[in-house]
Amino acid sequence: MQRAPDAETLALLAHLVRGERIGALGTLRGGAPLVSMAPFLAEEDFSAFWLHVSRLAWHTQDMLREPRIAFSIAQTDDRRADPYALARVTIRADAAQLPSESADTARLKRAWLARFTNAQTHFQLADFSFWRLAPRDARFVAGFGRIHNLNAKALSAAAKSPAR
Amino acid sequence: MQRAPDAETLALLAHLVRGERIGALGTLRGGAPLVSMAPFLAEEDFSAFWLHVSRLAWHTQDMLREPRIAFSIAQTDDRRADPYALARVTIRADAAQLPSESADTARLKRAWLARFTNAQTHFQLADFSFWRLAPRDARFVAGFGRIHNLNAKALSAAAKSPAR
Repeated sequence: MQRAPDAETLALLAHLVRGERIGALGTLRGGAPLVSMAPFLAEEDFSAFWLHVSRLAWHTQDMLREPRIAFSIAQTDDRRADPYALARVTIRADAAQLPSESADTARLKRAWLARFTNAQTHFQLADFSFWRLAPRDARFVAGFGRIHNLNAKALSAAAKSPAR
Repeated sequence: MQRAPDAETLALLAHLVRGERIGALGTLRGGAPLVSMAPFLAEEDFSAFWLHVSRLAWHTQDMLREPRIAFSIAQTDDRRADPYALARVTIRADAAQLPSESADTARLKRAWLARFTNAQTHFQLADFSFWRLAPRDARFVAGFGRIHNLNAKALSAAAKSPAR
């Protein structure tokens, strides 16, 4: 199952991650799963995925208690006849809040605002901060039955794929 | 928080649920969350949400062990400047496999194939079956900061909203 995926598979995965901007964040709440919509930003090498969330949100409270999360990025539904053919990846990761004084903050804020041009107001709210998702592994479904389990290293290999 | 949502909110929720056909399923796997893309079918009165899944899939194995799941339905990303304005609902539910000889099976199969016209082959595979998600509650985010917590009864009230 951990056989290295071929170059085409890695390219498809990179295309998916770079093509979408919103994922589904799975957290643990009262011992059961919770899923929340979450805009995200990926590091160029897929070594980290960033969220910008409010500490007032349930999912942030959940991550403070239990850092193990799952983050699913699915190809936007284009209303094709067979939705099982849509590409999707689930990244299991450890979540950690970025300290507000971090050296990364300014760089991330610029990248976030370039991606989400209307999110300026969130940076004026004291309850918002960046959270880093550090991938443990990824499960990529390139289409029906085309399932690939990747470790964090293979996920980073995908980031080096030539653009499609 | 459990104040009954107004008619407009209920109508927005019904519009969201009826307008999308794919959700993100949160299950518990090894004590941590897993999130998987999942096509769904809603009962007309939102008293149940149906999945058609393979017992070979991780999420199905998870539901067999722990029936408490979360199911998130998010408005398709239309690339608007502010993705936080997208509507989304997370339904926390109890999952149960529908016995294959159930009286509901034929009706559901017809409805499923009308919705997912290319899914015929899944019904020829012995490992696929319907799973019923019975809502416990729902958290509806109608847009940034517009959060509504609903019990199962309020979710069903949304289903009775006039079409928008």
